[in-house]
Amino acid sequence: MSLFDQPFERRGTHSVKWDRMERYYGVSSDDGLAMWVADMDFKSPPCVRDRLREAVEHGAFAYVDPEPDYTRAIGWWMRERHGWHVDPSWIFTTTGLVNAVGMCLDAFTDPGDGVVLFTPIYHSFAKVARAAGRPVTECPLINADGRYEMDFDHWDTMLTGGEKLLILCSPHNPGGRVWSRGELQQAADFARRHDLLIISDEIHHDIVYPGHTHVPMPLVDRGVTDRLVMLTAPSKTFNVAGLHTGNVIIEDETLRARFAARAAALSLAPNSLGQFALTAAYSPEGAAWTDALMTYLDGNRKLFDDAIAGIPGLASMRLESTFLAWVDFDGTGMDRAEFTARVEQDARIAVNHGPTFGRGGESFLRFNLGTQRARVQEACNRLRDAFADLQ
Amino acid sequence: MSLFDQPFERRGTHSVKWDRMERYYGVSSDDGLAMWVADMDFKSPPCVRDRLREAVEHGAFAYVDPEPDYTRAIGWWMRERHGWHVDPSWIFTTTGLVNAVGMCLDAFTDPGDGVVLFTPIYHSFAKVARAAGRPVTECPLINADGRYEMDFDHWDTMLTGGEKLLILCSPHNPGGRVWSRGELQQAADFARRHDLLIISDEIHHDIVYPGHTHVPMPLVDRGVTDRLVMLTAPSKTFNVAGLHTGNVIIEDETLRARFAARAAALSLAPNSLGQFALTAAYSPEGAAWTDALMTYLDGNRKLFDDAIAGIPGLASMRLESTFLAWVDFDGTGMDRAEFTARVEQDARIAVNHGPTFGRGGESFLRFNLGTQRARVQEACNRLRDAFADLQ
Ligand SMILES: Cc1ncc(COP(=O)(O)O)c(C=O)c1O
Ligand SMILES: Cc1ncc(COP(=O)(O)O)c(C=O)c1O
Repeated sequence: MSLFDQPFERRGTHSVKWDRMERYYGVSSDDGLAMWVADMDFKSPPCVRDRLREAVEHGAFAYVDPEPDYTRAIGWWMRERHGWHVDPSWIFTTTGLVNAVGMCLDAFTDPGDGVVLFTPIYHSFAKVARAAGRPVTECPLINADGRYEMDFDHWDTMLTGGEKLLILCSPHNPGGRVWSRGELQQAADFARRHDLLIISDEIHHDIVYPGHTHVPMPLVDRGVTDRLVMLTAPSKTFNVAGLHTGNVIIEDETLRARFAARAAALSLAPNSLGQFALTAAYSPEGAAWTDALMTYLDGNRKLFDDAIAGIPGLASMRLESTFLAWVDFDGTGMDRAEFTARVEQDARIAVNHGPTFGRGGESFLRFNLGTQRARVQEACNRLRDAFADLQ
Repeated sequence: MSLFDQPFERRGTHSVKWDRMERYYGVSSDDGLAMWVADMDFKSPPCVRDRLREAVEHGAFAYVDPEPDYTRAIGWWMRERHGWHVDPSWIFTTTGLVNAVGMCLDAFTDPGDGVVLFTPIYHSFAKVARAAGRPVTECPLINADGRYEMDFDHWDTMLTGGEKLLILCSPHNPGGRVWSRGELQQAADFARRHDLLIISDEIHHDIVYPGHTHVPMPLVDRGVTDRLVMLTAPSKTFNVAGLHTGNVIIEDETLRARFAARAAALSLAPNSLGQFALTAAYSPEGAAWTDALMTYLDGNRKLFDDAIAGIPGLASMRLESTFLAWVDFDGTGMDRAEFTARVEQDARIAVNHGPTFGRGGESFLRFNLGTQRARVQEACNRLRDAFADLQ
C-alpha cells in the first residue's frame, strides 16, 4: 500500500472541496465524492509538516524575513527540476497566482485593454480579468481527437489590436497538455506578432507524467523574456494552496520595475508560514516526495481513463499533466443538464462544470483525481452505474 | 514569576527584530537588545498555538473557507471588547494593515490626491502613500508636556483642498495616546470640514493600559460612518503579525462597493493559518490572555518610565496604549548622532529612530517594551550607564 493510499478525512476541516460541495453542487458530503476544487486529499510532505510544526512549537508568529533561504530554495527548485536559472532579485511573492494575475493586470495594463485566453482554461483568469475591467478574448483550442492543440491561424484573425496581454497556462488546465517546445515557440511568436505581454502560469509544472517534459517559457529558443512574466507556486505540488504563497518571477528589468512599483504601493505582505512551507518543500526531500506522488497519480489516471474508456459516449482526455481529468460527455447525446445530473445526483460526485472554463468546455466535466485510489475506483464504479444504460 | 517572564529565544528563527538588528543598526545580537520592530518576545496564547498545531497535525494545507467562524469571531471580539457591532458583510481580509492602507489608497483615491497624517506617526503610512504617488501632509501633533494633543486650528490652515484621505492612528503610535471621545469627535469634524475619508487604523486597540478606554471611531457621537474605513488586526495583541491577516471593516455601502471592486480585481487571498489563528484568538481564552498580557506590560512600562525619569535629560511619554515607549532625548542637549550612538553602541540596544515617524520625531527614539521584564531591566541599566555623565 502506498503512503498516498492512507485514508484521509477532510470533512469538518473547513475544506472548500469537502465542506462546501453540498452548498455548491447539492452533493451531500455524507456519501458524496468531492472531485472539484484543485487540491489533493493528501497530507503535505513530511518536510513541510515538520517545518510548520517547528514554527508552531516555537510559538511566536511575529515579523520574519525568510531570506536568503526562501529565494535560494526557489532558485534550487527551478534549476534542479526545470533547468531554469532564476535570480533571487527577479522574485516577488503574492497571495497565490490568481492574485498574481490581478497584480499583473494592474501593473501592465489599463482598464479596457484586452486579455487573450486559450480556452477552455482555468476559470479564474477570465473572472479576475473581467473584475478588473479588461475584456477577454477567448481563443478556442482545437480538440484534436481528445488532445488540445493551438490554432494560431484562426486566432490571428480574431485579434483586434486592443489586446495587451496573453495568459498562458503551461501545462494547461483543463485537458492537461504539456505544451511542446515548438508549441510554446509558436505562442511566443503569436505574442510578439500581436505585441502581447505573456503571463505564463506554470503552477502545474511539477505534476507532469512520465514521457512528458515541461519546458519553462523562458527556455524557448527565440527569447521571449523581454515580454514575459512567470508565475509559479508550490500550491498544487505540495497541497499548500491554502497558505496562499505564489511567486511572480520577472527577468526583464523594465517589467520588473513596473511590477515592483505596484507591489510597493499595495504593500502586499507574504505570510511567514507559507514562506517556511515553500522553503521546506523546494528541497531534495520535497523532490523525492513529488516523484512518489507522480507515480501514484499516474496510477489514478490510468485507472480512471480505463474506466471512462469502458463507458460508451464518455471520453477522457489523456492527461500529460495535472490531476484534473477532463471528460467529454458529447458522445452520450445527452444535454448538459442530463449528464450533469447523472454525475451529481446519481453518482453523487461533485465536479467542475465545463462551461465555467470558457469556450469549448460546454460538453465537459472536470474530475479531480488527487485523492486515494480507492476513491477514484469508487467514482469509476458509480459513473459506470450512472451511465449503465449506454452499454 | 509570570508566564511572560519565561525566557524566550528568538534568534535564529528568521525574526526581523532579532536576526536583522545587526544589519540595520550595527547592534550585534550576541549581547544586543532588540527593541525596535513592533512585535513581542512572547509566544502567542495557547488557544492560538493549539489551533495551529491542530491544523499542522491535520497535515493538508489546501483551500479552506473559514466561514462563518472567522467573521463571527471578529464580531464577537469587537462587541465584547470594544462595544462595537460589526456585521460579517462589512469585513474584508488583507495581508495586514499596511496592505490594507495600500488597498484603500487604490480604492478611494487617485494619484496626486493628498493624504493627511498627524505626525509623528507609524512610518509605513507615509511610505506606502508615497509609493502610491499620493503626497503626504504632515500635521504635527502638539507635545504638551510629554503628551500628544491634536492641533486643529493650526492644521486647518495647512490643508490646501487637495487632500482626500486622513489616516488616523487610534490609539496612536508612537507616543501611545488613547484619543478621547472628544478628540475623536474633533478629528471627525476636521475630516468632514475638509471632506476627507477617514482610515482609522486601530491595530493597537487591545493594548490599552488601566485607566484608559479606547473608543472605536464608529462610536463617536456625530456619525462618521459615511466616510469611515476601519482597520483592525490580531497582529499586535496576539503576536501574530507574521501571519499577515488584517481586516478592513466598512459599514458604508458605497465605500464598501468600491473596496470590494478593487479586492475582486486584485483577488487578494487570505491564508488559512492566519484565519484560523484569528478565529482562535478572538475568543474568551484570547481575552483572558490579553488581560494578563496588559497587566504584565503595565509593569514593564512602569519599570521603564521610572528608570528613564531617573536619567536627567531623558523623557519618556506616558503610554496610555501600545508597548512602544517614546523617549525624548532633547533635554540631553546632544545632537541626534550622539544620543543615538550612545543607545546603539554603548547600551547596545536596537531602537527605531524618531525621524522615520515624520515631523516632530527628530529628538526621539522608540523602545519596544514587549519583552521579558528582565530584558527591560537590562535595557534600563544600560541606558543609565550610557548616560551616566548626565547625573
Ligand atoms: C492554472 C492555475 N492557476 C492558478 C490556480 C490557483 O492559484 P492560487 O490558488 O495560487 O490563486 C489554479 C488552481 O487550480 C490553476 O489551475
Ligand atoms: C499603527 C500600525 N499600523 C499597522 C502596523 C503594521 O501592520 P501590518 O503588519 O499588519 O501591516 C503597525 C505596526 O507596528 C502599526 O503600529
